[in-house]
Amino acid sequence: MKKAETTYASIPMQKIGPIKITGSIVNENVIVPLATYESPLWPSTNRGARVSTASGGIQAVLVDERMSRSVLVQAPSAEVAVHVMHSLQSRKNDIGRITQGTSRFARFVDIHTQIVANLLYVRLEMHTGDASGHNMVTKAADALVTWMLQEYPELAYVSVSGNFCADKKVSAVNGILGRGKYVVAEMIIPENICRRYLKTSPQQIIDINIKKNLYGSIIAGGVRTANAHFANMLLGFYLATGQDAANIIEGSQGFVTAEMRENGLYFAVTLPNLIVGTVGAGKGLDFVEENLRFLGCKEDRPPGDNARRLAVIAAATVLCGELSLLAALTNPGELMQAHERLER
Amino acid sequence: MKKAETTYASIPMQKIGPIKITGSIVNENVIVPLATYESPLWPSTNRGARVSTASGGIQAVLVDERMSRSVLVQAPSAEVAVHVMHSLQSRKNDIGRITQGTSRFARFVDIHTQIVANLLYVRLEMHTGDASGHNMVTKAADALVTWMLQEYPELAYVSVSGNFCADKKVSAVNGILGRGKYVVAEMIIPENICRRYLKTSPQQIIDINIKKNLYGSIIAGGVRTANAHFANMLLGFYLATGQDAANIIEGSQGFVTAEMRENGLYFAVTLPNLIVGTVGAGKGLDFVEENLRFLGCKEDRPPGDNARRLAVIAAATVLCGELSLLAALTNPGELMQAHERLER
Amino acid sequence: MKKAETTYASIPMQKIGPIKITGSIVNENVIVPLATYESPLWPSTNRGARVSTASGGIQAVLVDERMSRSVLVQAPSAEVAVHVMHSLQSRKNDIGRITQGTSRFARFVDIHTQIVANLLYVRLEMHTGDASGHNMVTKAADALVTWMLQEYPELAYVSVSGNFCADKKVSAVNGILGRGKYVVAEMIIPENICRRYLKTSPQQIIDINIKKNLYGSIIAGGVRTANAHFANMLLGFYLATGQDAANIIEGSQGFVTAEMRENGLYFAVTLPNLIVGTVGAGKGLDFVEENLRFLGCKEDRPPGDNARRLAVIAAATVLCGELSLLAALTNPGELMQAHERLER
Amino acid sequence: MKKAETTYASIPMQKIGPIKITGSIVNENVIVPLATYESPLWPSTNRGARVSTASGGIQAVLVDERMSRSVLVQAPSAEVAVHVMHSLQSRKNDIGRITQGTSRFARFVDIHTQIVANLLYVRLEMHTGDASGHNMVTKAADALVTWMLQEYPELAYVSVSGNFCADKKVSAVNGILGRGKYVVAEMIIPENICRRYLKTSPQQIIDINIKKNLYGSIIAGGVRTANAHFANMLLGFYLATGQDAANIIEGSQGFVTAEMRENGLYFAVTLPNLIVGTVGAGKGLDFVEENLRFLGCKEDRPPGDNARRLAVIAAATVLCGELSLLAALTNPGELMQAHERLER
Repeated sequence: MKKAETTYASIPMQKIGPIKITGSIVNENVIVPLATYESPLWPSTNRGARVSTASGGIQAVLVDERMSRSVLVQAPSAEVAVHVMHSLQSRKNDIGRITQGTSRFARFVDIHTQIVANLLYVRLEMHTGDASGHNMVTKAADALVTWMLQEYPELAYVSVSGNFCADKKVSAVNGILGRGKYVVAEMIIPENICRRYLKTSPQQIIDINIKKNLYGSIIAGGVRTANAHFANMLLGFYLATGQDAANIIEGSQGFVTAEMRENGLYFAVTLPNLIVGTVGAGKGLDFVEENLRFLGCKEDRPPGDNARRLAVIAAATVLCGELSLLAALTNPGELMQAHERLER
Repeated sequence: MKKAETTYASIPMQKIGPIKITGSIVNENVIVPLATYESPLWPSTNRGARVSTASGGIQAVLVDERMSRSVLVQAPSAEVAVHVMHSLQSRKNDIGRITQGTSRFARFVDIHTQIVANLLYVRLEMHTGDASGHNMVTKAADALVTWMLQEYPELAYVSVSGNFCADKKVSAVNGILGRGKYVVAEMIIPENICRRYLKTSPQQIIDINIKKNLYGSIIAGGVRTANAHFANMLLGFYLATGQDAANIIEGSQGFVTAEMRENGLYFAVTLPNLIVGTVGAGKGLDFVEENLRFLGCKEDRPPGDNARRLAVIAAATVLCGELSLLAALTNPGELMQAHERLER
Repeated sequence: MKKAETTYASIPMQKIGPIKITGSIVNENVIVPLATYESPLWPSTNRGARVSTASGGIQAVLVDERMSRSVLVQAPSAEVAVHVMHSLQSRKNDIGRITQGTSRFARFVDIHTQIVANLLYVRLEMHTGDASGHNMVTKAADALVTWMLQEYPELAYVSVSGNFCADKKVSAVNGILGRGKYVVAEMIIPENICRRYLKTSPQQIIDINIKKNLYGSIIAGGVRTANAHFANMLLGFYLATGQDAANIIEGSQGFVTAEMRENGLYFAVTLPNLIVGTVGAGKGLDFVEENLRFLGCKEDRPPGDNARRLAVIAAATVLCGELSLLAALTNPGELMQAHERLER
Repeated sequence: MKKAETTYASIPMQKIGPIKITGSIVNENVIVPLATYESPLWPSTNRGARVSTASGGIQAVLVDERMSRSVLVQAPSAEVAVHVMHSLQSRKNDIGRITQGTSRFARFVDIHTQIVANLLYVRLEMHTGDASGHNMVTKAADALVTWMLQEYPELAYVSVSGNFCADKKVSAVNGILGRGKYVVAEMIIPENICRRYLKTSPQQIIDINIKKNLYGSIIAGGVRTANAHFANMLLGFYLATGQDAANIIEGSQGFVTAEMRENGLYFAVTLPNLIVGTVGAGKGLDFVEENLRFLGCKEDRPPGDNARRLAVIAAATVLCGELSLLAALTNPGELMQAHERLER
């Protein structure tokens, strides 16, 4: 075993905040670590962070949370598949019992089904406490499919994971039915702060968001995506906090909003598929534990609250990095000059 | 500055091959490093690697290569935007000169345009030698947009990057017009080897590929994606070789093929958007340099050949990991048991 | 007012069946009218119909049904939007009462929400009896948004339709959450019948379905689509039965399945978004009424049963046309020769 | 043979214009026929038409035109497929000769390829004069695949159409590589005209376009679509002018732009995939011929000019209908009241 070392910076960069969220999981300034090979990410995100502090902080809110895995079975005919589907929908109590029995923190939320000819996809959705929950929900899906094959002997097993989940793959289903934390982070930036820190105007940011993030993503054939570089901040944050960074694929499918308000530029990021955890694989590494502790995400709280806190901090970090890049792009030449200065 | 440490394994795991490609960039056994927090990835990919060796190796081929960046400008009207578009299409020599002048290794390939009302998106595509080429093409795009604003004073600058690029974001354009290396890796697995190593039959792998990777991805609302977990192998490979791992987003948009041939199971992965480089940011870290050297990707070769070699090794690695997971999924319970055994 | 005359043929073409569905809404041979400017559609679909009769008929099943409209409002902040969302989810009885009060046949099914920054999209889903239900659900949405603005004065109106519906537009949401009838039609074709009528083998149809309908649609950047020409049969059927034919857009987002069974080729079409009605706009025209009567869809049945019957007949028609074209495409030159012969 | 009668209105509704386009194919007022079962479409589109006249007319421009068909062949291996692909790219003269030889008006434009494992998709793109060109390009594709199988005996035939075309199916490829006419129609509406005719403000139209057409379509999982109801106007226009209306599927994948200019609201529609023709199937019907003549699209002009004129008129019609619906939606209750008043 060897170690791959990714440098990361945390002090005094990325001092975000204060981030305030409903229920006061976070209401303070936070310093965020980002692990990356792309060093210009640090000063860029940090600039956004300074704007957040100067503007009075970021407001974040959790819309939803669940982790999913879809089992896949086949029936002799579509008619039988539909019959089983209806039966399952009427037996959610049984499904809850079967799936929750596999893990101390797993809580059944719901199932959603799809039928393609005689194939039946059952998407299992669960709360998974402070874990991102990949394994927890796979274990529950294993129990579910075993039980289904017993209860409906006309079914045949195909896969414990049928890609209607959809793990680490671009999809629309994750945003529509939910996977991970669904978080919005928003702030209002007074015009003078926008000009001083970001060297641009609110109107230019509104403009580039519409023309690049919205129309640009649409003509590129994007799906449920309208942002400039959510992926960069997510990768750095995920590596620094021991997450499975392959989940930046669904995580990066999010949206930017920028519009003029009376008191300044309203700027928000919506991340419907932010998969994070504070326990589980990767969380035992020394630097990860230190980082999670530093972020206040290893406290003695009700199950799930540490992960929720981590999610809103991640969203706030994405906001800072996105704001800063969009601002830079409004000025011809600025992006390239920053890269050249910083990478030498 | 601190360090984020990701463990990785390379010996004796992932001995892939021999990988053979046209032009003999690789024609030997290769041992591949994968950096990950998800340790079950190693034995799983390694199982696929053992199958590859037992089956006589992997054949890989490079279909295309280019790196892209799309500038975004606006005209007073659609009519003017179209006029400029036509003019640009007739001035590719000028564009080649302007864009190649920015870097020693940059070679102009082509432009592609899109118009939305009065907005003009110009997607610049270049060869970038052994670099993945993000910065090289941004620098060239900077020169292009500066030149365009001089030559066509009726235009106004919007952004040096208009999301028709599309960097680290899900899209269809990257697969259709090309971004990064377009690689296919394929092999034929005799039935007895399939059964012995993978504990399953060729027909079961063919079956799960159709029902999970094809129909499952389609109903999930995926775009240009049909695989189980390309993202996992790409992330591990990218982190171990100093790549910008946020490019797993486009990299993971690839396809699996499995069909019966006379002499066994034909199994192939197609990765149209594999962004890798052997020089540039991240490549100077000690462990990265060691890994690239170990993979034979730091040799004295014509520009681009080291990166091409790295690309086909990456594709072969993806093939090994994908094959192994699909095989595991055909057996109820196998995936979960492996995770439980390995993560404890 | 003038009349646009679209020729269509009805006798003796497209004799499909017998179509059998659960609950015996259809269990007999059916002759189907198709209105089209593209005359080769008739003999082609008819060939599939003859195969269906020779093979013992088509089995069809209704998976789900609902019509949707999404209202769009904005809150002062994401936090307020989430608060309203949670409140709405706990008041489904109120929403049912408000929305059902607008029409005799409307039955509330469910709501689904999405939040983008401070925007709240509420997708209302209803049963609409024998109507396709566009107007019924718009009327209900009108009542819903009016009520919401009264109950939650912090909200502001944006639109009674927010494109999360999504009417006559390509989307993934319609297939995932349901819009229109979700129907599967399937049959088993003995190999000798396949060869005699379709001049091809089951294996060739299986093969072309995978390579054209699945991989071909995926690389084209399709979303939730895997078929050759569902749109053609739907258009002809919709025009002949007085439907709003613009709904072929979501209707054509469906899937073909072809696989070998012991007793022949299993061939199925899945149409998750088939929007049809037997009452409402267009249904009063003389030829439409005659056609609906002829199809047995103007009988005195419980509300919704006439429309369900129409839906499964539409799906069976799509199956016949799709099967015939795929078969033709397996033989080089056959498609073009048929077009040349028939259009002269 | 029977007739399906679709009523349509043309006088005095939908007096659009004047429409001006580069090269003066249209520069006059035009009265447009729309065939539909949904009668509210007439007054709505007509309202937009009246705005267009009051605002000084619509400016339209043709960005590109081509019709496509993709043949599909398979090679023994990916390596051979790539070899053939490179060979084809160097033999465009041969391909031009082979494909143009099949029809008097066919002009070879380009090919684009895709490789999935050992499958090779070759997308043939041609100019097809005044025809929409489905048959012309299929005939040429037939000749192409026959020639390919002769020249490269290692290839095997799969299909003359491989869904990378992509005909009457949702895709991203049609917008990125082009299929049909690519048209932009734009106008500037003075604020007082906006308020008088549309009972709304420019800002409200800008606002609803962003929140409904852009964000709403994105969260719905749309692909290359950002509009409210292009499909309705296209269907009516297609049926009235003898087009193959199943092409509204790609046709409806277009975008709306609305932004404030000094002299009023800039409002534009972009239709990258507008498939229309003035000759071919359906064009010989009496009412179709009359309509085409009435629209000035049966004149003695160079090949293609009649079809181009028809395309820009179609785009202008879409603009009028889209503008009117968006305006109506900004006023709570207006849409439903209009439907109720008009359908009784």
